[in-house]
Amino acid sequence: MSKMIQLRDGPEAFREIETPALVLDRRILERNLARMGHHLRRLGVALRPHAKTAKSIDVLRLALAGQPGGITVSTLREAEYFFGQGVQDILYAVGIAPVKMAHAAALIRRGCRLSLILDSPEAISILQQASAREQVQFPVLIELDVDGHRAGVQPDSAALLELARAISGGSGVELRGVMTHAGDSYQCRSQSQLRAMAERERAGAVLAATRLRTAGHAAPVVSVGSTPTATFATDLSGVTEVRVGVYMFNDLVMAGLGVCAIADIALSVLVSVIGHQAERGWIITDGGWMALSRDRGTSSQPVDQGYGIVLDVEGSVSPDDLVVVSTNQEHGIVARRDGKPLPLTRYPVGSSLRILPNHACATAAQHSCYHVIDSDRFESVATWRRVNGW
Amino acid sequence: MSKMIQLRDGPEAFREIETPALVLDRRILERNLARMGHHLRRLGVALRPHAKTAKSIDVLRLALAGQPGGITVSTLREAEYFFGQGVQDILYAVGIAPVKMAHAAALIRRGCRLSLILDSPEAISILQQASAREQVQFPVLIELDVDGHRAGVQPDSAALLELARAISGGSGVELRGVMTHAGDSYQCRSQSQLRAMAERERAGAVLAATRLRTAGHAAPVVSVGSTPTATFATDLSGVTEVRVGVYMFNDLVMAGLGVCAIADIALSVLVSVIGHQAERGWIITDGGWMALSRDRGTSSQPVDQGYGIVLDVEGSVSPDDLVVVSTNQEHGIVARRDGKPLPLTRYPVGSSLRILPNHACATAAQHSCYHVIDSDRFESVATWRRVNGW
Repeated sequence: MSKMIQLRDGPEAFREIETPALVLDRRILERNLARMGHHLRRLGVALRPHAKTAKSIDVLRLALAGQPGGITVSTLREAEYFFGQGVQDILYAVGIAPVKMAHAAALIRRGCRLSLILDSPEAISILQQASAREQVQFPVLIELDVDGHRAGVQPDSAALLELARAISGGSGVELRGVMTHAGDSYQCRSQSQLRAMAERERAGAVLAATRLRTAGHAAPVVSVGSTPTATFATDLSGVTEVRVGVYMFNDLVMAGLGVCAIADIALSVLVSVIGHQAERGWIITDGGWMALSRDRGTSSQPVDQGYGIVLDVEGSVSPDDLVVVSTNQEHGIVARRDGKPLPLTRYPVGSSLRILPNHACATAAQHSCYHVIDSDRFESVATWRRVNGW
Repeated sequence: MSKMIQLRDGPEAFREIETPALVLDRRILERNLARMGHHLRRLGVALRPHAKTAKSIDVLRLALAGQPGGITVSTLREAEYFFGQGVQDILYAVGIAPVKMAHAAALIRRGCRLSLILDSPEAISILQQASAREQVQFPVLIELDVDGHRAGVQPDSAALLELARAISGGSGVELRGVMTHAGDSYQCRSQSQLRAMAERERAGAVLAATRLRTAGHAAPVVSVGSTPTATFATDLSGVTEVRVGVYMFNDLVMAGLGVCAIADIALSVLVSVIGHQAERGWIITDGGWMALSRDRGTSSQPVDQGYGIVLDVEGSVSPDDLVVVSTNQEHGIVARRDGKPLPLTRYPVGSSLRILPNHACATAAQHSCYHVIDSDRFESVATWRRVNGW
């Protein structure tokens, strides 16, 4: 059977899937989960998987194998969904707002061990007022800023101890420890920078916890995490848990950072070729930014992958070195990376391609479910739902 | 009541909405719809609104007032949904793929007047084979390329007449005319360029239809459209319908093109302030790229609006000239455009802000519904659902 015919017909698994569609390769997923699980076990630290990438109980169940069972979420909707699926211990790792307190309190009343995070005296007041109104206790972690990336107080700041005093001086809020996320690790450009960032994340969190304990506060939880720092950490002494999410699927940004190989990317978008522009060497597909997301995370990396690398339908990188060079809402334009002419007969109208995502969190968020395949046998295994929105 | 207190408490309409949330101002929407409706009536051409921006029957019903009733869609899921809501005449304005033919045929069998588009002999074969298999006729428009932007055949090409001959030479496919979309109008940088692009779109479509008719083919439909070209068109002679979608909501990209004013943007994202980084002059909100989208469409315009312009909760542009300077998944960083220090006490933790979107289609797609308000009375009017996905 010629290559062209394979591309046109596609494997059985894809015959019935209307494109564009999100494809998850379970073999690669399981390999990624095993690698991170093994690495963190070797470092003697628990894994609290971040659900924000997968947003699927099916994926999280696999990620939780051999772990304590707690997860991290980025929305209360995720908390609601995963609690409904039997997950009891949930860290909501985004600062809280007054308008969400009734929802958070309702989860706690129903038995969810929901922890919140904060980094300001105003947030403590919001929680204390909500506690009085809702008659629940809110366990919290103080958010730390270890890299100037986003939110949090400095681990060595007076503000850290002031927050702890304000919490213990009032009622309704229970201090459980500290958390941080070295988001700036995405800007690292070498393994030594990544190792240094991992140590900075660990050292900042441990310093803050130590200062709290020295001042007489309880800080049983020392929580850190980002996929790049977790991958390159060589010592996590003093850390009690690591929060990671992207490692499950990986993506081109992670590959660009050296966190994974292209072959470790479990997620792709199945698209159909719907036309050609022969003079320009373009393949037009039905995979636009709606299906791929607008994320251009590799544009600031040494190798810009456009809107994604093109695979054939069986998952092999196209021999023509194709990338998605531009997108509209429901159209993707695929061309050779070097701009040279393309043998379009290899990619006939009606054939299928798969696109590897720049950013797994962003691409997956454009879809309501995963079409799960098994790369070795290449059969459709299952459809797994996602919980999107707020 | 001081400005600060207004910001903290927010109007009644927003007290119960968990952030981030999509807000649609019905007064502005109605004004935008009236303006385009009036303009196209004056030019003597029908409006076939594009549902891809709003994806809501409530919005489309308003847009269809006084029009023939046909709509444009970007997915078969939209077609399915709007047909279920009573819309009979639907143009699916994205090239078809074999894997979608059963779905398209099922809609036609149920009575939907679904038209498809094509620009290749391969697509004609796909439709003819599907027609034989599914026992339905497929009405089609030939897609034209008037601006080198994406798909389509040249209006003056031999390929145009070859396609028409291939359609009439076989069975199962009925030629209804031509369509084009001058997507490159988004790159125009002056009103004269926009007027010229509108005329290029019109002239190309009319030339193609005339050539088809001269060669003995039926071409009753001459369909053009993009919000920028429709807005600046001064003559649409020979055109039978205009397809536009973004004009309903408008956005910062449209404002940057001169298509609308900032005050004409009907869509915004309601967010909560969840923290500050005083030293950096940052307000941290819960409106990240998941709520705003990753679209950075203004980055190539003369004024880069970051991830969006910041309004107070009542809809006035912030006096501090704030923009969303960066985003993570569920975090937005708001700062002064000029980078100068910010009076953070004006934006306390727990207060609400609204963010105007770069690209209405992309931002709205991140949400499952609209929280509809009425800007004059500032009351919550309704919740309107969207139909996302494929």
